[in-house]
Amino acid sequence: MAQSSKISFSMHGVGVSAGIAIGNARIVTNALVEVAHYQVPRKAVAEEILRFESAVQHVCLDLEAIREQLPANAPAELAAFINTHLMLLADKQLSEVPKAIIEQEQCNAEWALKQQMNELVAQFELIEDEYLRERKQDVVQVVERVIKVLLGHPSGAIRTDESAMILVAYDISPADAIQFKHHQFAAFITDVGGATSHTAILARSLSIPSIVALHRARDLIRDGELIIVDGNDGIVIVNPDKDTLAEYRLRQEQWELEQQKLKRLKQTRAVTLDGHEIELHANIEVPADVAKAKSVGATGVGLYRTEFLFMNRREMPDEDEQFTAYRTVAETMKGMPVTIRTLDLGADKHVNPDTVRVCTNPALGLRAIRLCLAEPHIFHIQLRAILRASHYGRIKILIPMLSSLLELRQTVTLLERAKESLRVENIPFDEAIKLGGMIEIPAAAINAEAFARELDFLSIGTNDLIQYSLAIDRTDDTVSYLYKPSHPAVLKLIEMTIKAANKLEKPVSVCGEMAGDIRFTRLLLSMGLRQFSMHPAQVLTIKRQVLQTELQAVLPLARKIMNTYEIDKIDPLLDKLNQ
Amino acid sequence: MAQSSKISFSMHGVGVSAGIAIGNARIVTNALVEVAHYQVPRKAVAEEILRFESAVQHVCLDLEAIREQLPANAPAELAAFINTHLMLLADKQLSEVPKAIIEQEQCNAEWALKQQMNELVAQFELIEDEYLRERKQDVVQVVERVIKVLLGHPSGAIRTDESAMILVAYDISPADAIQFKHHQFAAFITDVGGATSHTAILARSLSIPSIVALHRARDLIRDGELIIVDGNDGIVIVNPDKDTLAEYRLRQEQWELEQQKLKRLKQTRAVTLDGHEIELHANIEVPADVAKAKSVGATGVGLYRTEFLFMNRREMPDEDEQFTAYRTVAETMKGMPVTIRTLDLGADKHVNPDTVRVCTNPALGLRAIRLCLAEPHIFHIQLRAILRASHYGRIKILIPMLSSLLELRQTVTLLERAKESLRVENIPFDEAIKLGGMIEIPAAAINAEAFARELDFLSIGTNDLIQYSLAIDRTDDTVSYLYKPSHPAVLKLIEMTIKAANKLEKPVSVCGEMAGDIRFTRLLLSMGLRQFSMHPAQVLTIKRQVLQTELQAVLPLARKIMNTYEIDKIDPLLDKLNQ
Repeated sequence: MAQSSKISFSMHGVGVSAGIAIGNARIVTNALVEVAHYQVPRKAVAEEILRFESAVQHVCLDLEAIREQLPANAPAELAAFINTHLMLLADKQLSEVPKAIIEQEQCNAEWALKQQMNELVAQFELIEDEYLRERKQDVVQVVERVIKVLLGHPSGAIRTDESAMILVAYDISPADAIQFKHHQFAAFITDVGGATSHTAILARSLSIPSIVALHRARDLIRDGELIIVDGNDGIVIVNPDKDTLAEYRLRQEQWELEQQKLKRLKQTRAVTLDGHEIELHANIEVPADVAKAKSVGATGVGLYRTEFLFMNRREMPDEDEQFTAYRTVAETMKGMPVTIRTLDLGADKHVNPDTVRVCTNPALGLRAIRLCLAEPHIFHIQLRAILRASHYGRIKILIPMLSSLLELRQTVTLLERAKESLRVENIPFDEAIKLGGMIEIPAAAINAEAFARELDFLSIGTNDLIQYSLAIDRTDDTVSYLYKPSHPAVLKLIEMTIKAANKLEKPVSVCGEMAGDIRFTRLLLSMGLRQFSMHPAQVLTIKRQVLQTELQAVLPLARKIMNTYEIDKIDPLLDKLNQ
Repeated sequence: MAQSSKISFSMHGVGVSAGIAIGNARIVTNALVEVAHYQVPRKAVAEEILRFESAVQHVCLDLEAIREQLPANAPAELAAFINTHLMLLADKQLSEVPKAIIEQEQCNAEWALKQQMNELVAQFELIEDEYLRERKQDVVQVVERVIKVLLGHPSGAIRTDESAMILVAYDISPADAIQFKHHQFAAFITDVGGATSHTAILARSLSIPSIVALHRARDLIRDGELIIVDGNDGIVIVNPDKDTLAEYRLRQEQWELEQQKLKRLKQTRAVTLDGHEIELHANIEVPADVAKAKSVGATGVGLYRTEFLFMNRREMPDEDEQFTAYRTVAETMKGMPVTIRTLDLGADKHVNPDTVRVCTNPALGLRAIRLCLAEPHIFHIQLRAILRASHYGRIKILIPMLSSLLELRQTVTLLERAKESLRVENIPFDEAIKLGGMIEIPAAAINAEAFARELDFLSIGTNDLIQYSLAIDRTDDTVSYLYKPSHPAVLKLIEMTIKAANKLEKPVSVCGEMAGDIRFTRLLLSMGLRQFSMHPAQVLTIKRQVLQTELQAVLPLARKIMNTYEIDKIDPLLDKLNQ
């Protein structure tokens, strides 16, 4: 392709942050692919090790400098991310093992580091938890920074002043993102990543559109080319023609207008046209997310994913650290409910990060409550921390991955033990704290009435429920086409759970992605759901849908959908339901 | 422990072949643990490679000799097993790569081979299919043989003449087993293995008790010690006291008496006391299994696992080879139904055995019908072979792992295409051939009526159904305690499927392990099941249970079990049902 040609084409990826951006591509190259392999004479090995150490030191100082320069209003997680990268860099896996490789193989530092990186990435690949698995990208990013220094072209500030630039990268590290922020990128698009990658989290926190998993974007797009990024549909259009450009400028305006309108709904109560009051809660990962939840008018935290506190670190957070985090959330929510989900980690990585246990099917293995019951000392600390925090707000406890009542009873025993230990020490906690369970295993949904009987509330985790019901790992792209939230069996399991809870007058919510997907709002309302929990960015859109729904009017069609067992007839009916 | 002490103790493993044996331990040592690592001078490398080549050659000749000496009445799979080991040995992964390692690392041949073995075993560990994964033991066994030659103590014939000996090994290779056979071992017990290991398959075919997965049996048991092997309960008792010994001698007699009695049921029709006629079919893996199925009076093959034909080989079996196998089974069954399940392979290993695709959760990935739809050329060949064979007997086609009607419709299209291709060539087949589906994914069970409507019959695969319903990989021993066939949700899914099929008057059978588990026979009958398919060894026991059941009398208690949602109350009720 000659530089002068301007071929228009489009690419499809995964839209992870909504909105439309139009701007010129700014390609970020990848130092990793440039790494050569050469032998180092025996007598030069010591020097090569020194070169490696000084590059690591260089990057540490760089990262610390970036952290110091964070503007006061920067999202709180940015500093946390940089800290995790500093921790990674200090880890002997990255700081020491490459030196041993240089020594043993008499190879250059870049090569040794890259070998060790590949080793670590392979270990991460074996982790079941999607979020944790994606943390391999952090390893890659840190290594990339060190390699850039070794290669003599460290990551420098971008000097260009263009405003509407679209960042095109293999992946975006938190540190990169902070520098990029001052340049007001209009969008991020990357070759790799998923809904829970840093790129996605940061783009959402900066409220700019973003598309990941574009695979070969960096190869196909050239620096400076005009591109349209449609984060809503996951489409990138390169060198658009005049008409397309005009159309997307219009769509962009409409989108922004709509966002402005949505913001006005913040204080509005979520009530259907025929008067059904709906709770719209937010899912959060760190205490700092509470601000975002409140800014969209969420009336509670429906899912606080506590594993974030345990990740990217060598040592477990102790009881006080956990307590402080949980208390902060409880207090900031000022009396609104905060549902804390106990640890949902897969494998036993966090217990001893040096040994990632290899299991054939981690999604079907020792994770979440299974892991907590197998490691009661870890669970005890978390339960105590949650109980202590319950004195400072309206906290509820949510247990992930229950499959049988026996697990629930073991959990209740451990919870009682934690309460008793606090009573002995005269530490106050909410004696009436509510205990709920995630319904995300098919057996639990089928058995929902039994769980509803013994629990104070239920929360349906649709992501895992779909995964197990259909036997589909949605992160496995050879079968992800079979992952269908609208599969009649999935809808049936959700309905069974909602009906069982309603029958026993126990609150039930949906906290998986279906809760934030406007396509399912009316159907879920029709099933009897009155509480939704979702990413803060989705709350206002769902609220508008609630406000525009007359439940009585949509019930007959919803009932028809629930009685349809042919998968291909459901989507058209859903479209009709949402008209 | 002093040699003279005789401490009595018991060990628990997995009983994989029923019966009780009492005899003296014969420990088989493991050459693999003795392998040392040493450097070979550069100039001696060529010689070391020669030493490796000659050891491989030695083992090839050995194996060929063993194959030649097979008695005429030896089980047919023995020769096949030896052939697969010869193939493994010829594979460049074992015959060439170790030479490269010797060259590169200047190490001894044993060490190089062991390194490469570990590499291959690690690759096998990633395979989802339990059967395929266990084939790593074949690699270990072949390597062990070569290493024994390298170490100067090749596997020789066992010279001792004692009759009632219990073989205690790390694992048993097919070649070992053949030699051992002449010594009439009374039982096999091994440190590793599972229900589908060679040890298990061979023990069952020799009708001797066997227990695997005893972990440290070889460390704890000393050569010559008296041991009791209770294959029914998976218990090994070492140095039993007098009373225990007397008790087990009695149990052994009773067991053998019972087996004799059971054999008399071969020709008896399986009918309940109140006149319900039940079909008891056999699950088979290779055409040779038909003899076993007929010897116990099975009235059909309910599940012919065709993947056996595709395993342990470099090239796919072509249409004629498949046709011959299917036709042999159809003809040998002489007009009785033969249900052929299409390929149920995980990952894409068989398509190109050099690249084992790494996926995080293979059980939730591209397997069975998903793989066949992704590789339609492979599927087409199998469908044509099955159709051609259908001209020679009563063949039905069974599709594994259906999750949605869309997959079923794609399958029907491909089946039509295969039929059309035969019509064009004027090749005869059964135009009325029946098409059935495995119900083994929760969504399919919930949606069973939809499947029953579009299929000719259903077959419930309880093993996978339990695995997905409970999100438990039962081969993962950190969570296998949660794998419960009697979980109320599992029972509900099975009942839903049976009722849906019966409602539409479509035949339905259970072909998972529950079908051969006497604990569930009455419950399944009460749910309306009239067709069971199981390992041939289980047919007569299940038949006796059917003969002893008055369906009308057990229905109320069975109904009570189906209405019980508390998992811990079900097992006592099941015991009561079976009294």
